[in-house]
Amino acid sequence: MSTDWLEQIKWDDKGLVPAIAQDAETNEILMVAWMNRESLALTLDEGRAIYWSRSRQKLWRKGEESGNVQQLNEIRLDCDADVVLLKVQQIGGVACHTGRRSCFYRRLDGNTLVWETTDAVLKDPSQMYSK
Amino acid sequence: MSTDWLEQIKWDDKGLVPAIAQDAETNEILMVAWMNRESLALTLDEGRAIYWSRSRQKLWRKGEESGNVQQLNEIRLDCDADVVLLKVQQIGGVACHTGRRSCFYRRLDGNTLVWETTDAVLKDPSQMYSK
Repeated sequence: MSTDWLEQIKWDDKGLVPAIAQDAETNEILMVAWMNRESLALTLDEGRAIYWSRSRQKLWRKGEESGNVQQLNEIRLDCDADVVLLKVQQIGGVACHTGRRSCFYRRLDGNTLVWETTDAVLKDPSQMYSK
Repeated sequence: MSTDWLEQIKWDDKGLVPAIAQDAETNEILMVAWMNRESLALTLDEGRAIYWSRSRQKLWRKGEESGNVQQLNEIRLDCDADVVLLKVQQIGGVACHTGRRSCFYRRLDGNTLVWETTDAVLKDPSQMYSK
């Protein structure tokens, strides 16, 4: 299997690129994580988002603990070839480990200069990570 | 003016975070660039997207040459506080220097493993950067 498509990506000095997960239906941005070559190749092979966890330094099959798997619809690449975009179907309706749909649940209030939480918790995190 | 909101962001070892520009109306992802503290503070102050150009090592007022200014609707932050999301109105309808609406104009064909260009050029780049 050709890996040319992987080599066309401009991996950073740690061999990583940021990957955005976007809801394929609503276009909502769910989260951003990081990928290395192996995780992106596996994402395509398995048809689900698989990231590289920088904190744990290992592959992270999104949803492996929480059940919040991201089924892959398509993979896109930007003009600089240094950011990957995954269009996904978010199983369970929750992408964030806080139990919210999206990780971008805070909005800056321009008057008070406070990051305000705007999005509701849909699932109790203690239920998501009970194993 | 308090800068607490800036200090709550987890800037990387180069003092940068990735910033996603998303169309405030359609939720389309337009581009990803980088920001430092100054560029994010100026983005809020001026109500338009201002990035940090890593290649030129200077502030980049999006649209300063092309006219393709991004007017700011809101700023969001993710749960890890290391990615910023700008909801913007894309003046001129084109975010990419190639003249396309979005920088994510290539999609991986899962059969051929080729990055296929799916989006049309809307503006001639030579007209956008004629100065």
